Amino acid sequence: MSLVYSLTNAVAAGVYTKNLVFAAPVALDRKRTPSEKIRAVVINSGNANACTGDRGLNDAMSMARTAAEALGIGEEQVLVLSTGVIGEFLPMDKIVSGITHAAGLLGAEEDHLVATARGMMTTDTVHKTVTRVLQTSQGEVQLTGMAKGAAMIGPNMATMLGVILTDARLQMADAQALLREAADDSFNCLSIEGHTSTNDSVLLLASGAACPKPLKDDDLAVFRQGLQEVCVALARAIANDGEGATHLITLQVEGCASRDSALQIAKTVANSPLVKTAIAGADPNWGRIVSAAGYAGVPFDPQGVTLHVQGMLLYQKGRPAEFEEQTVSTAIRDSRETSIVLRFTEGQHNVRFWTTDLTAEYVHLNADYHT
Amino acid sequence: MSLVYSLTNAVAAGVYTKNLVFAAPVALDRKRTPSEKIRAVVINSGNANACTGDRGLNDAMSMARTAAEALGIGEEQVLVLSTGVIGEFLPMDKIVSGITHAAGLLGAEEDHLVATARGMMTTDTVHKTVTRVLQTSQGEVQLTGMAKGAAMIGPNMATMLGVILTDARLQMADAQALLREAADDSFNCLSIEGHTSTNDSVLLLASGAACPKPLKDDDLAVFRQGLQEVCVALARAIANDGEGATHLITLQVEGCASRDSALQIAKTVANSPLVKTAIAGADPNWGRIVSAAGYAGVPFDPQGVTLHVQGMLLYQKGRPAEFEEQTVSTAIRDSRETSIVLRFTEGQHNVRFWTTDLTAEYVHLNADYHT
Repeated sequence: MSLVYSLTNAVAAGVYTKNLVFAAPVALDRKRTPSEKIRAVVINSGNANACTGDRGLNDAMSMARTAAEALGIGEEQVLVLSTGVIGEFLPMDKIVSGITHAAGLLGAEEDHLVATARGMMTTDTVHKTVTRVLQTSQGEVQLTGMAKGAAMIGPNMATMLGVILTDARLQMADAQALLREAADDSFNCLSIEGHTSTNDSVLLLASGAACPKPLKDDDLAVFRQGLQEVCVALARAIANDGEGATHLITLQVEGCASRDSALQIAKTVANSPLVKTAIAGADPNWGRIVSAAGYAGVPFDPQGVTLHVQGMLLYQKGRPAEFEEQTVSTAIRDSRETSIVLRFTEGQHNVRFWTTDLTAEYVHLNADYHT
Repeated sequence: MSLVYSLTNAVAAGVYTKNLVFAAPVALDRKRTPSEKIRAVVINSGNANACTGDRGLNDAMSMARTAAEALGIGEEQVLVLSTGVIGEFLPMDKIVSGITHAAGLLGAEEDHLVATARGMMTTDTVHKTVTRVLQTSQGEVQLTGMAKGAAMIGPNMATMLGVILTDARLQMADAQALLREAADDSFNCLSIEGHTSTNDSVLLLASGAACPKPLKDDDLAVFRQGLQEVCVALARAIANDGEGATHLITLQVEGCASRDSALQIAKTVANSPLVKTAIAGADPNWGRIVSAAGYAGVPFDPQGVTLHVQGMLLYQKGRPAEFEEQTVSTAIRDSRETSIVLRFTEGQHNVRFWTTDLTAEYVHLNADYHT
């Protein structure tokens, strides 16, 4: 169990999984955000409370109520996040005593942040936190994000959860719009294996403790930039912790007619097992990358495609370039990070996307676990 | 090299890859089909003649011309298929002498058919041929199909090729429409890893040697059924030869609002690495299957979903069913074939789709090959 508590009413925004099969806490948080009076987030790992019907919804509400009672706040001021096995009911005895226990351990030190981030973990190998200090006309504000996620794995599945806290003061509409935008450019440009979870959620809580007035204009632009950076850093941390991954792949798709086109191509390339196994094998296999783009369902001129891997030109004008295979292979093998840049001549829209390679270890992790 | 030759002008139809990056022989065959006067198909494996620009197009035309000269027919009467490495020019010396050599070995025995099917293979472990004899009002007609394909693998990629021959007489428009329809229900419902090749092609040649008049009405319905069966049998043979596969998965998606909706859900489930690794591990993981359907982008009522695996009920009405995990696991593990049936309550449209599980062997095969 993890518990996040705000001393004052916080403006809260949320973005959630697009999966039609979504968990009870997602249903609850969707109703309660955006809001101007959230005080707490209660989080459990080990059980996702998904595919649990009406009883699951009651359990999620009960989690919020228990936290509210322990903290002396209203139950509608509490958001709920869950991650873990799906299709099983929450062990409410353990959950209730866990919440009460957590409420007695609250604090404002870095240790507390780390403990909260660790409490969200399932198959993660490391906890994931990021902090930025921003300068505004009202003085310094802080942004701190934590996340969990490392692909989906048995016994049933895991999930991506993020909680971002700030002492900046935000208007509710700004909070929701900025979180939506930042999530679109970070968590929604992240795929380990293309499997969207039932529980994916990212929350932003803005307490306003550091500034009397809501941020606007230049200050809001500074915050927007900081929020983007925090979300991108967390997304990269999740990709880097991908199960069995030996490479963190950053895929830039440029020169498309729309952002959606660029995103569609990026997703298709990032989810191609042939591309992912090629990177695992340090194979500069331009054919797999270019042909994956070709079946993305987005029209483009094949003669206008340019491909760089690790900064080296592999393909242009419908033909492979002259390149030294061994040099590119070594550049892939010797770096944890792989850069793939696919450039088109269709327009001005770009997208940056993160994924991992596909290794035999991933298959072992996901085939050898049983429900 | 393989060479298919018809003693008389054959009606020919073709269906081809939808990949925007398509190979030179695909460009050539697209122009030449449908046709009423095709006499030959020339096929090489080892080099796909894809991403080879104008020189590649000239090489494909040169393959057709060489075959035409060796056989004493017109060059526009020849279709061309290629499969193998992409981005390299064809070794035309070897190709030309290979075609001439093949032209001297023509024959009408089963051995010749097997040799032709074997000549198309790349990473296939077995050749794939299927024959049906059909009864029509004009007497017996034969349908014989051959195919190659076993997923895409290095050095660059492989491909799916199919050639279906019949001595039935068909009108050109019927041939094209029936092949399109049969391919949609077979080869287009087949995915090893979702990577559409640059060279995928299926050709149908109808010589008319067995019947004086074009098939129509009931005879055409018999032929349609036979062609469907041949295409499904070849598609299943390809899935069964999937690289590293230990299970041939048949996925039935039923009760959707449209065939496209059913197909979209089937593709999404079939391409989920989490679903494929679960089957490899004989794990009755309904959560991965149901949640993959949930992110397919097709609206449905999650409360209306029913899932059977190996004939056993795993999920219904938004909740897992009561089932004995060990029994289902054993039923998956002990059979080469896995049956997954996902039923919705949105309409009357169904689709049948074939795929394989995902094993560590697949990753080894595709990561450890190098260009």
